[in-house]
Amino acid sequence: MSDLPKHIEIREEGPREGFQYEPGPIATERKIELIDRLSDTGLREIQIVSFVNPKAVPGMADAEAVVAGITRRPGVHYLGLWLNEKGMERAVATGKLDIKGSILFSASERFTLRNQNRTLVEHERAQHEMARRYKELGVPIDYALITAAFGCNFEGDVAASKVVEIVGTILALCEEQEIDLSYISLADTMGWATPLQVKRLVGAVRDRYPDAPLSLHLHDTRGMGIANAFAGLEMGVAHFDASAAGLGGCPFAGNRAAAGNVCTEDLVFLCDEIGIETGVDLKALVDCAILAEEVVGHPLPGSIKSGGTLRTLRQKIAAGARA
Amino acid sequence: MSDLPKHIEIREEGPREGFQYEPGPIATERKIELIDRLSDTGLREIQIVSFVNPKAVPGMADAEAVVAGITRRPGVHYLGLWLNEKGMERAVATGKLDIKGSILFSASERFTLRNQNRTLVEHERAQHEMARRYKELGVPIDYALITAAFGCNFEGDVAASKVVEIVGTILALCEEQEIDLSYISLADTMGWATPLQVKRLVGAVRDRYPDAPLSLHLHDTRGMGIANAFAGLEMGVAHFDASAAGLGGCPFAGNRAAAGNVCTEDLVFLCDEIGIETGVDLKALVDCAILAEEVVGHPLPGSIKSGGTLRTLRQKIAAGARA
Repeated sequence: MSDLPKHIEIREEGPREGFQYEPGPIATERKIELIDRLSDTGLREIQIVSFVNPKAVPGMADAEAVVAGITRRPGVHYLGLWLNEKGMERAVATGKLDIKGSILFSASERFTLRNQNRTLVEHERAQHEMARRYKELGVPIDYALITAAFGCNFEGDVAASKVVEIVGTILALCEEQEIDLSYISLADTMGWATPLQVKRLVGAVRDRYPDAPLSLHLHDTRGMGIANAFAGLEMGVAHFDASAAGLGGCPFAGNRAAAGNVCTEDLVFLCDEIGIETGVDLKALVDCAILAEEVVGHPLPGSIKSGGTLRTLRQKIAAGARA
Repeated sequence: MSDLPKHIEIREEGPREGFQYEPGPIATERKIELIDRLSDTGLREIQIVSFVNPKAVPGMADAEAVVAGITRRPGVHYLGLWLNEKGMERAVATGKLDIKGSILFSASERFTLRNQNRTLVEHERAQHEMARRYKELGVPIDYALITAAFGCNFEGDVAASKVVEIVGTILALCEEQEIDLSYISLADTMGWATPLQVKRLVGAVRDRYPDAPLSLHLHDTRGMGIANAFAGLEMGVAHFDASAAGLGGCPFAGNRAAAGNVCTEDLVFLCDEIGIETGVDLKALVDCAILAEEVVGHPLPGSIKSGGTLRTLRQKIAAGARA
C-alpha cells in the first residue's frame, strides 16, 4: 500500500519555537523544567533556544541562562538556532550545546528579499560562503532547509520543479565542499501544503535525486499538519521537525491564534498506531505537552493531550477483561 | 496516484452536534442565525436539531422553536436527529424538516449493551423492525450508520472483517425490504482511526462490496480527522459528515476539551486546494465558523478560521503584481 518507514527520527523544536513566539514572560526555571522533561521522553534531538537579538525577541533574552540550567542527558542532542556568526559564537560560548551548522535556501525570491534583503542568487552565494566559514570553524553542517517549499504568502504557489532545482544546488554545494549533510528539509513555512502536494513534491525530488536525505518541516497553520506528515510517511520520509503540544505559532497566518509546527505527540501517536518506531515514550511526551500548556499559561493546539492515548484505553479494556 | 473523487457531498452536522454538546445556554435566535448563515454557503444537507429528552439534553429543549425560526432555502435539506418514534413524531410535527430515516448498527457489542441495553443480535433485529416501521410510515431511509467501526473505548480494536460483515447485513436488509440507501456511514465514533486504517477498512469493504455507497463520519478526538478524511478521499469516498468550526465535542475523549467531528471548512479547504468540488463557498463557510465561535462564546477547533484561506492570499498577491 505504501512506502512507510519502519523508524523515524523527530527533531523536537517546541522549546525554541514556543519561547520565541509566546508573548511571555516565562520564567527561566520553567523553561528549563520543560526541556529537562522533554529530555526524558526518548527524543534524541531538541532545539532549545535561539541566539537572536533580545530586543527583537525578548523571550530569548535568557537563552544562555536556559542552557546553563538544563541537565544534559546522554544520547540527546541539544541544539540552538542562530542567524549569524555572532549568534553562533554565543551558542559555542555556552559550552553545553551540540554545535551543528545549517544552510538556508528558499523557494521564494520575494520572501528572501523581504527577510534577508537579497535576491535568491545573492542568498545562494551567501550560503556557499557560510558553508566555507563553518568549515574553517570546524562546525559540521547537518541541515539544509528550503523555506516556502510548498507556497509563499508573498509569491504564491511554488512549482515542484523549482524545489527540485534547489535540492540539486544543495547537493552540488555539498559535493563541492565535501559536506556530509544529514537532511534536506522541505519546509512548509507558511502552511500552504496539502497531503497531495507533499506526495507530489517528495515524489518529484525522489525521481530526480533518489538518495537525497529528505526531512519535512510542516506548519499546521491550516490544519493539514498531520495529514501532510502522513503523506510524507507514505512517501518514505523518515525525519520530521515537530513541536511538543504544537508550541509556537505562525507569524504568517491570518491571525495570531493559528498553530505553528506540527504537534510532536500527535505525530508520535500516529506512528505508534501504525507501527512506525519513533523511540519516544508517548505517555511521557503527553505529560510534557500538558506541562507546556501550564508553562505558557494557555491552551496549545495538540490533540492527544485532550483526546488521550489509545494505549491507556487498551490497557483499561484488558484489565477489565481480566477482572 | 489515487482514486480521488471529482466531487464530494458534505452533510453538515455542526448545529446539531454543537447545540447538543455545549453547556450553554445559547439563545434560540442565535441558533437560527447560524443555521440561516450555513444555508447560504452551498451546503446541501444540514442536520440542525435533535429531538431528544430535554432533561437529558437541555440544549435541545428549543428544537421546535429553532426549526420554526429558520428560513428554508431551496435546494438545502434540513435534517433532524431522533432516537425513537416519539422523537420522529416531533420532527414530523414541525412540518418544516426533510424527514429521512436511518438505521443504526455498531461494530461493538459492549458499546451497544452500554448505550442501548441490548446485544448486537438484538440490536440488529430492532433495526429490521425499525426499517419496517419507517416503510409503514412512508419515511424513506437514506442512511445506515455503523458506530465504532474503527475501534471502541469499551471493546478495543475492531477487526475490518467484522465491519465488512455488518455492511453485508445492511445490504441484505436493504435488498429484503427494498430500501434505496443513499449511504452506509463508517463512523469513527470514539476517534480511534488512523489514515492507514481508513484505507484498509474502506479497501476491505470495497473488495467485498464494490458498489456499497460509503460515507465517513470521522471524529477528530486525536487530531487525525483531516488525515483520515484525505485517506478516505484517496480511496474514492465521496460523502462525509462534518461540523462547521468543529462544533461539538467527544464524550468519549480523555477530557471535555477534545474535538468532535472533523471540521467542515478545513475539509472544504483541503478539497478546494486539491481540485475536488464540494459546492461550498469556503469564504462564506469560514464566516459561519467565526460566527459559531461567537455564538458558543469560546474558541472552536477548526484551523482555517485562524490560518486564513489561500484563495485570499493568492488574490492579494495577484493584485500586488498588477499594481
